[in-house]
Amino acid sequence: MQFSFSISELVKICAPIQVESSTTDVVVGIASLGKAKPGDLSFLASMRYRNLVPGSLASVILVPVDYSGTPGPNQAYLRVENPSLALTLVCRRLEAQLWPRPPAGVHPSAVVDPAATVHDGVTIGPLCVVEAGVSIGAGSWIEAGVFLGRRATIGGSCRVGPGARILAECVLGDRVILHAGVVVGSDGFGYETVSGKHEKIPQVGNVIIGDDVEIGANTTVDRGRFSATTIGTGTKIDNLVQIGHNCVIGRHCILCSQVGLSGSTTLEDYVVAGGQVGFAGHLTVGKGSMLAGRAAIYSDEPAGSKLKGDPPLPIPQAQRVAALMKRLPEIFQRMDAVEKKLLD
Amino acid sequence: MQFSFSISELVKICAPIQVESSTTDVVVGIASLGKAKPGDLSFLASMRYRNLVPGSLASVILVPVDYSGTPGPNQAYLRVENPSLALTLVCRRLEAQLWPRPPAGVHPSAVVDPAATVHDGVTIGPLCVVEAGVSIGAGSWIEAGVFLGRRATIGGSCRVGPGARILAECVLGDRVILHAGVVVGSDGFGYETVSGKHEKIPQVGNVIIGDDVEIGANTTVDRGRFSATTIGTGTKIDNLVQIGHNCVIGRHCILCSQVGLSGSTTLEDYVVAGGQVGFAGHLTVGKGSMLAGRAAIYSDEPAGSKLKGDPPLPIPQAQRVAALMKRLPEIFQRMDAVEKKLLD
Amino acid sequence: MQFSFSISELVKICAPIQVESSTTDVVVGIASLGKAKPGDLSFLASMRYRNLVPGSLASVILVPVDYSGTPGPNQAYLRVENPSLALTLVCRRLEAQLWPRPPAGVHPSAVVDPAATVHDGVTIGPLCVVEAGVSIGAGSWIEAGVFLGRRATIGGSCRVGPGARILAECVLGDRVILHAGVVVGSDGFGYETVSGKHEKIPQVGNVIIGDDVEIGANTTVDRGRFSATTIGTGTKIDNLVQIGHNCVIGRHCILCSQVGLSGSTTLEDYVVAGGQVGFAGHLTVGKGSMLAGRAAIYSDEPAGSKLKGDPPLPIPQAQRVAALMKRLPEIFQRMDAVEKKLLD
Repeated sequence: MQFSFSISELVKICAPIQVESSTTDVVVGIASLGKAKPGDLSFLASMRYRNLVPGSLASVILVPVDYSGTPGPNQAYLRVENPSLALTLVCRRLEAQLWPRPPAGVHPSAVVDPAATVHDGVTIGPLCVVEAGVSIGAGSWIEAGVFLGRRATIGGSCRVGPGARILAECVLGDRVILHAGVVVGSDGFGYETVSGKHEKIPQVGNVIIGDDVEIGANTTVDRGRFSATTIGTGTKIDNLVQIGHNCVIGRHCILCSQVGLSGSTTLEDYVVAGGQVGFAGHLTVGKGSMLAGRAAIYSDEPAGSKLKGDPPLPIPQAQRVAALMKRLPEIFQRMDAVEKKLLD
Repeated sequence: MQFSFSISELVKICAPIQVESSTTDVVVGIASLGKAKPGDLSFLASMRYRNLVPGSLASVILVPVDYSGTPGPNQAYLRVENPSLALTLVCRRLEAQLWPRPPAGVHPSAVVDPAATVHDGVTIGPLCVVEAGVSIGAGSWIEAGVFLGRRATIGGSCRVGPGARILAECVLGDRVILHAGVVVGSDGFGYETVSGKHEKIPQVGNVIIGDDVEIGANTTVDRGRFSATTIGTGTKIDNLVQIGHNCVIGRHCILCSQVGLSGSTTLEDYVVAGGQVGFAGHLTVGKGSMLAGRAAIYSDEPAGSKLKGDPPLPIPQAQRVAALMKRLPEIFQRMDAVEKKLLD
Repeated sequence: MQFSFSISELVKICAPIQVESSTTDVVVGIASLGKAKPGDLSFLASMRYRNLVPGSLASVILVPVDYSGTPGPNQAYLRVENPSLALTLVCRRLEAQLWPRPPAGVHPSAVVDPAATVHDGVTIGPLCVVEAGVSIGAGSWIEAGVFLGRRATIGGSCRVGPGARILAECVLGDRVILHAGVVVGSDGFGYETVSGKHEKIPQVGNVIIGDDVEIGANTTVDRGRFSATTIGTGTKIDNLVQIGHNCVIGRHCILCSQVGLSGSTTLEDYVVAGGQVGFAGHLTVGKGSMLAGRAAIYSDEPAGSKLKGDPPLPIPQAQRVAALMKRLPEIFQRMDAVEKKLLD
């Protein structure tokens, strides 16, 4: 990532409350306090790390207003309300450089059915396939090699990453981001076993994804059996996650990488699941629940549950059980000793 | 999914034993008993839910012949042998609408080597790549953006989803369904460590997939080291599953999402593995075994095993152990008390 | 895989120390000792299997110099230093047949930006997309349907499999192999929750991959938040693995299938992780550590750790604990008996 910002450009972007001292360096990198070299921008995101500031070699450091230190030689502090947010503003500027939005239009190598509806300001990248009846909302950006199946509906201002596949009839809201390789609308996994053969149950529902949803690379979302698999507004899903058919995911949930939802799992709003969590399906996890990485959820859990482990337990209990598991050899030894004593 | 069926069309599709009462509504949706609105078709799949039928707003309900209730106003019952099967018949009709089979032929944007053999009635979608020596059996449908590597063999009446990749020399039987993003024939994971460097062991086997196999989105199946990784007739595999090299999977197995098979795992016929089950490799799981979601299998297991957990235990025992794990704090407290008493 | 080798060709490839006896069969397959039929090449990789040699039907067997048996009728032994290595030499020869390197050049269907730099001897397959500023080193082979984003850098002699996607600014060293469907440089998973909405934290770092790295099918590697996610020289990664943003993976590590690294996980050199291992992120695992399949790593672990399970324990202790877990019902029964006795 090549870029350069003068301190005056950074001041413009971050709008600090106070600029303390100055630097002649041009900023060409971003790094944490401990790793920064001259030419880097750094930031104090949490007061926990305040003791790293004085030794940091960064040319410019974003610090909170109430940080008490003073800059080193040829080093500037930008005092801001929220250093993380200020950094985000800088990174957003960089993002535009990283992925400059190509001009609207359809790449000549894309295969777009004439019976698709493409609204204003849409970009369709090279080698995309857009089938009949598809609708793409204003300002959306379909990157290279994307497949949009029959009658799929893409909202406005979406971004669909390279090689993502949105199958027939599926619906995306506005400002949805799908990363590379995502599959939306694959068949649910359902069979009826007749005379020893698994007969496929047709999967004719679809997937409905709300506004501001983001889905990570190579994640798969199955279509409903006959209703919709739904993902609520503002929910964020990481890479390699599996969403089974008929799942209903609430708004503003967070699902980390490699989470698996069996069919007909319902997550209410604001559920957070750490990496590799598994849900057994046909169950509901209540609003605001937090499931630590690797938890296994087998049944309904009430709102506000905070669970860890397999079997899933409230986090403090799970930690206590984990600690005692290590002591299983001890308890067996103690039991042997007690029994011996009792027999004496 | 937009569709509409008159009641007479539904009668034609489902061939009910008896039609009870009638409706003037046109059926434009399918929903479960509790969620159905007027205009929906619903069904009583299990007598467990019989008490939901009287209150259902569905216009048409598929009920078993021996269900005793009577329809509400402007509501019809179709009495059938097997309501699930009747629903499947309706859904199959819808499927044809969802994914209308495009006419046979090769899309002009596909890159098909002249030395490939394409049999009658094959459809090759836009932007596919078909290399030399490939054979595609009669009536198969290769969707958009599929890659078929050198000398790959696709049977008849297969369906290969968008962006699936079948690499060189791999073989599919008849009526195989591969969903979007599947990779068949990636290299197995094998190295020999020589002087601290991991030297790649060439993987020159292939993958042989039997008839009527279905493989879910973004699943990966590695080619054998020098023999074949094989998947038996009728086996169904869900999304994001990993099949390592040299695995031998029997007929009519069911592997749920995110299952992982290390290299040289053998599953005999009719093995069922729930989500996220892991197999350590170089082991055989006997015919008809059922492995509950998240089980970890480290060694040979006899036919008919029913296991759960890590370590894997027979399901009732696993449930008992899980329940007792929660009581580990108690046993330590009881031990303290017992020891104290013995010392007094 | 169709091929045929005369015994004299095999002698040329394997350069055995001694050829014992001969065969008139042409070698058309490779199989393990127990499965080999006439026409197969087999090998004795470990003396553990020496008793399978006399009964093997293979036409040619690679045996170690000090193996004491003698060939059967129409069967030859090739006595070599290292039968596995000799087999690898044969398989390398086959590999060249399996995946004959196509001639250098850009397929006419590929979409290559004029502002990309393509060095000598590069092959770019059909339907690839190569964006502006990309650089592809000499002799690299970009297979069908690959996406290379803006300013991505591919080293020399790399092989990028069908449908792999390397996003903007990411860097590959020399001789890197990426298998089908790999995603390098997807956004890291980072949000700041403001008034109940998860605001995306821009991810403007990249991914830097060292020389001789191999990455398996459909694996995902996220770009750093503002620094680089890095994968050291010689590291091998299996299918469906997740590498979170800002991870730093050392040299010569081995990560088996479905491993998940949360963001900011550091693995020092020569770390080995079995299938489905999970790392909680913001932690360091020391050099040469071995983590058995399914282990869950929650905190820093020193160099040379050998861990298994969740909670992770040293392997012998983990095995003991697993064995005692099965006996939890027993300990509770014994406790009941002891308490009863004490009360009497």
